[in-house]
Amino acid sequence: MPKRIGRYTIYLQNRPSITGNAAVVGKKEGEGPLSQEFDKIHDDEFLGKETFEKAESELVKDAVTRALSKADETPEDIDCCFSGDLLNQCIGSSFGLREFGMPFSGLYGACSTMALSLALSATLIDSGALESAVASTSSHFCSAERQYRNPLEYGGQRPPAAQWTVTGAGAAVLKNSVPDNPRVNAVIFGKIRDLGITDTNNMGAAMAPAAAETISAFLNDTHTVPSDFDLILTGDLGKVGSDILKELLIKENNIDISKVHNDCGTMIYDLDTQDVHSGGSGCGCSASVLCSYIINKLRKKELKRVLFVGTGALLSPTSSLQGESVPGIAHGVLLTSD
Amino acid sequence: MPKRIGRYTIYLQNRPSITGNAAVVGKKEGEGPLSQEFDKIHDDEFLGKETFEKAESELVKDAVTRALSKADETPEDIDCCFSGDLLNQCIGSSFGLREFGMPFSGLYGACSTMALSLALSATLIDSGALESAVASTSSHFCSAERQYRNPLEYGGQRPPAAQWTVTGAGAAVLKNSVPDNPRVNAVIFGKIRDLGITDTNNMGAAMAPAAAETISAFLNDTHTVPSDFDLILTGDLGKVGSDILKELLIKENNIDISKVHNDCGTMIYDLDTQDVHSGGSGCGCSASVLCSYIINKLRKKELKRVLFVGTGALLSPTSSLQGESVPGIAHGVLLTSD
Repeated sequence: MPKRIGRYTIYLQNRPSITGNAAVVGKKEGEGPLSQEFDKIHDDEFLGKETFEKAESELVKDAVTRALSKADETPEDIDCCFSGDLLNQCIGSSFGLREFGMPFSGLYGACSTMALSLALSATLIDSGALESAVASTSSHFCSAERQYRNPLEYGGQRPPAAQWTVTGAGAAVLKNSVPDNPRVNAVIFGKIRDLGITDTNNMGAAMAPAAAETISAFLNDTHTVPSDFDLILTGDLGKVGSDILKELLIKENNIDISKVHNDCGTMIYDLDTQDVHSGGSGCGCSASVLCSYIINKLRKKELKRVLFVGTGALLSPTSSLQGESVPGIAHGVLLTSD
Repeated sequence: MPKRIGRYTIYLQNRPSITGNAAVVGKKEGEGPLSQEFDKIHDDEFLGKETFEKAESELVKDAVTRALSKADETPEDIDCCFSGDLLNQCIGSSFGLREFGMPFSGLYGACSTMALSLALSATLIDSGALESAVASTSSHFCSAERQYRNPLEYGGQRPPAAQWTVTGAGAAVLKNSVPDNPRVNAVIFGKIRDLGITDTNNMGAAMAPAAAETISAFLNDTHTVPSDFDLILTGDLGKVGSDILKELLIKENNIDISKVHNDCGTMIYDLDTQDVHSGGSGCGCSASVLCSYIINKLRKKELKRVLFVGTGALLSPTSSLQGESVPGIAHGVLLTSD
């Protein structure tokens, strides 16, 4: 049963298990440092479909199918699927998942959605409300560019703080207490934090304050320090946002995470050679890093204790055109190897 | 603690209480049959803001502020707020709620979002993961028209099966077991159901199959029949969709709900005089009917047992332009007077 610790953290006493995980990505991601970790690299950015949006739905479908298969489950076994994405009205998820026949809860947490879907799945399983769940999310560079910025054909210049939307999807299957699987130990739902950043090419700066708040609240609630974790993994602040996060935590909370911090946005690409500026972003960024490399390392016990903090920028093209700043949010999930 | 009954239904053994509820609407809704029920009728469609989108955020803020005040709670007391809307990237909710400082989980369930937010809030409270929560959602006729259809100035013709997006927001505050308040007894998460409807002016037809599936699954899981309820309330199928729902349930499941059924989309407007064709729609439709008239009637014990089934159409303008059909979803919540 879930039990609250401190003001914001929810400890999951049954520690739900991740019994299957999969990540599928596009060509550029497949050329990055995590190349060997992904379940499938799709060289065709259309995945055989007619549009980028349909291709994104196909990524979701593929990731969920592979995660279910690795968990030895069928869609009929699953009590609820939690999923969302960046596309307007979350069509990546709803069209990608409609054929499975699983009960479905749509989420919107921008790039924090993988953490949000994991947090909700795990908490509801821990409580007995669900026996099994799937958490998934996706993004696609080409569908995101034309929705948020410009059609690809426009060939817009990207400023240095910009991030590159990952083409990829990740999925995790959760069940209650299955030994020898990574587990979700605790979750924390973040607050919206808006410090007035209006530069939509600097999402890292907009999201870093929310990440700082969630990390410091979690450490405070659980009476832990950064060295208690093998890894504090943000996703996806990129290089610019990661630097701001570390600075903010030292300045505001006297917490130094530099020895254990990494960021999905800086891990998925080679920042020196892949022309992605500050790093990767998009719902599929943390999803594909977490649901491959990280959960696999927990599975092999090469990582023991990971605080995963998904970060999202809750803007829309409309809000930015109307002069609004960019609110950030960060949800946290504590994962252990067993 | 939550306990599963049958295949899909989750019974909430502590039966969380709705300690505060509020609904705020626009001028047209304030001229409809439920006029006396709303907490505030905003005659200015801009609510003093510069844009329709900012006005929608203001509706969310107003509804949540009023619900909190009626529950005698402050935002600091609330463990998590669950909210979503129809605007791209759910900016109605995130901008409307950003100043409250409550932990926030964004949802996307199209017009089913009020049911989804109530279901998640209540289940997490029942389990002890949260002590208090807010469930809210909104829509705005003017922001929806220009996002989904055409700018208002275009003056497009509306076919007979079309529904009118409600300008309104509803919010409910939930806590564990506070006597003399309406309670959430059980919830059910719906499946995506897509029978291939491609007419985006006939959302009722697209959503009715999902509503039929959720209602029959709930009755089956709980071994109940329609006469066990004072009201089976769908939101928002409109007149066209309600007729299809009743027909489908008789044909496929031999279930006749006609004596106890009503629909938020047909209740909020006078269909004969208000020129809304098939009725109301939008996340704010079921939210403003439920969080005023229905919960107030439960509070006064004039209704004792209401199965509320929120219905959503998981389309986007892009998916429809790409020739996709319209997937529907329906989430259910069993409310009782005490």
